[in-house]
Amino acid sequence: MTCPIDSNPIDEALKAAKRPSEETFAVGVDVGGTKIETVLVDATGMVLADVRVPARRGGDNVIDDIARTVREVAGDHLNELAVVGVGTPGQVDSEHGVVRNVVNLDIDTLELGEKGSKILGVPVRVENDVNAAAVGAAALLGTPQKGAVAFLNFGTGLAAGIIIDGHLQHGYSGSAGEIGHIPIDPNQLPCPCGQHGCLETICSGASVGRLWTHGNPPMPDLIRQARAGNEEAIAVLAKVTHAIVDAMQIVAQSIDPSVIIFGGGMAKTGEPLVEVTREEIARREASCPFLTTLNLGDRIRLAPVDQPVGAVGAALAALQA
Amino acid sequence: MTCPIDSNPIDEALKAAKRPSEETFAVGVDVGGTKIETVLVDATGMVLADVRVPARRGGDNVIDDIARTVREVAGDHLNELAVVGVGTPGQVDSEHGVVRNVVNLDIDTLELGEKGSKILGVPVRVENDVNAAAVGAAALLGTPQKGAVAFLNFGTGLAAGIIIDGHLQHGYSGSAGEIGHIPIDPNQLPCPCGQHGCLETICSGASVGRLWTHGNPPMPDLIRQARAGNEEAIAVLAKVTHAIVDAMQIVAQSIDPSVIIFGGGMAKTGEPLVEVTREEIARREASCPFLTTLNLGDRIRLAPVDQPVGAVGAALAALQA
Ligand SMILES: [Zn+2]
Ligand SMILES: [Zn+2]
Repeated sequence: MTCPIDSNPIDEALKAAKRPSEETFAVGVDVGGTKIETVLVDATGMVLADVRVPARRGGDNVIDDIARTVREVAGDHLNELAVVGVGTPGQVDSEHGVVRNVVNLDIDTLELGEKGSKILGVPVRVENDVNAAAVGAAALLGTPQKGAVAFLNFGTGLAAGIIIDGHLQHGYSGSAGEIGHIPIDPNQLPCPCGQHGCLETICSGASVGRLWTHGNPPMPDLIRQARAGNEEAIAVLAKVTHAIVDAMQIVAQSIDPSVIIFGGGMAKTGEPLVEVTREEIARREASCPFLTTLNLGDRIRLAPVDQPVGAVGAALAALQA
Repeated sequence: MTCPIDSNPIDEALKAAKRPSEETFAVGVDVGGTKIETVLVDATGMVLADVRVPARRGGDNVIDDIARTVREVAGDHLNELAVVGVGTPGQVDSEHGVVRNVVNLDIDTLELGEKGSKILGVPVRVENDVNAAAVGAAALLGTPQKGAVAFLNFGTGLAAGIIIDGHLQHGYSGSAGEIGHIPIDPNQLPCPCGQHGCLETICSGASVGRLWTHGNPPMPDLIRQARAGNEEAIAVLAKVTHAIVDAMQIVAQSIDPSVIIFGGGMAKTGEPLVEVTREEIARREASCPFLTTLNLGDRIRLAPVDQPVGAVGAALAALQA
């Protein structure tokens, strides 16, 4: 995190890079359950300023915090922004800029796009947080512009962000990437959505926390205990990696992305998570030459953990839209 | 099937429609296990001439039959064709025009694109038969150009063709749409690919033929017997529709297509197949409000059965490429 210097980070950036002033700037806002992070970026996603504030509950407070932090990073150049992009949890209608059912923040329905645009005098576009993180992670990792990229967000739930030829996919009903509620896990655990066996009942941060209560965060501990030979840990980990690879095969054998990015809280486990996933892939490949040709293990990348992925992605997704 | 009139269907078409002669024409060829169907189309996919010949085995014979039928439908205007597109079973490398492992036709490796182009003096592009049928069915049904369309081919196996914003998706490794080998069916039957529980072990024409041996074709008989209260038929049909709706949820919750087309031999069952599928969707919706919002039942369309879907699609896919 860089605190904005005085009030003209755009000037500073232009000076530092000797860039023409007609360059495009945007602000991205990542609305989380506990904090709001706001960044000023250029068209490439380079972060010029970054600010974080604790999240307050209620629609008015959320809009107030967004407006305040956008002004803070944009300084005198607010009116020169091309767009402000907001990534938020809940059900997002990005076409109309409406957010619904953000339980963590006591939001029922919020016309975030319209209200934000009015207050700031700049177009405000809204995206769901997983899609925003997908765009941010793809940009920060420098994934190929051509073809498909999938971002698997192992957070409270499981959802994917799908990017094809550089364009975020929303789908016909806004349900592109909702792989967490495909009900095909063999354990057939009940899901709050009403189905049984949804992938997110096994492979999400929250699910692993329920399946393995001995460590916090659970995933690194689960992997350590399994490596140490703990039978219960081995069994739980097998379920989790089975569901992760099912999720990977689903995206690989539908849109066949060149890169599958692991993001969300559980992905902060880092390389050990990639390793156990690759072991499950290798186990499957051993009996299936077709799967071997897909080489799924090599497609995994971890989302950057030390960069404002969601906020950068919110800005870039808004620029793209 | 219309037999080509003399040798100048392009002239006839131009005369009939009073269209300028600089219009684009293409030929599409659908190579099947038992027949080769070849059509002359305009840029909209309208069929101007159509010819079918029995398929002969061996690469040289296949190329010979393709060249002969292309000349037959194009007549004197062979050199005015923009492209010849060929849809074929087997493993297709459409970038290099190479076809591999067409067991039915005794083809190991065939450089169909290069050899065909040389013989005909027109660019020949090769596509896999499911992708070609997807493009053909989408065009003939007039599906939306914007957004995603999925074509589920219930043939010998199960595979999908995925079209996004009018463009056929091949994916990073040419495996886009290979949903038949996602190993998530609860019956966990062994698949020749080496995995267990691949969707195509239950929901493909060949699989249903193994699960229900009392009628030929099996699917219409299976549905009739289940409707009549036959317990065994009810149990088998439940497995099949379960796998079909799993396949639908996989495409719907990854790329969220506006239309899901049922094609392939099993789809010739027609409306009864759509009905039993909708019943399984309704059963799932009853406990899952999220699924209800997807409204999958309404997205189903049947591929046209009385039109040369594969050949038209081969031509259009080649024009697009
Ligand atoms: Zn669910
Ligand atoms: Zn298989």
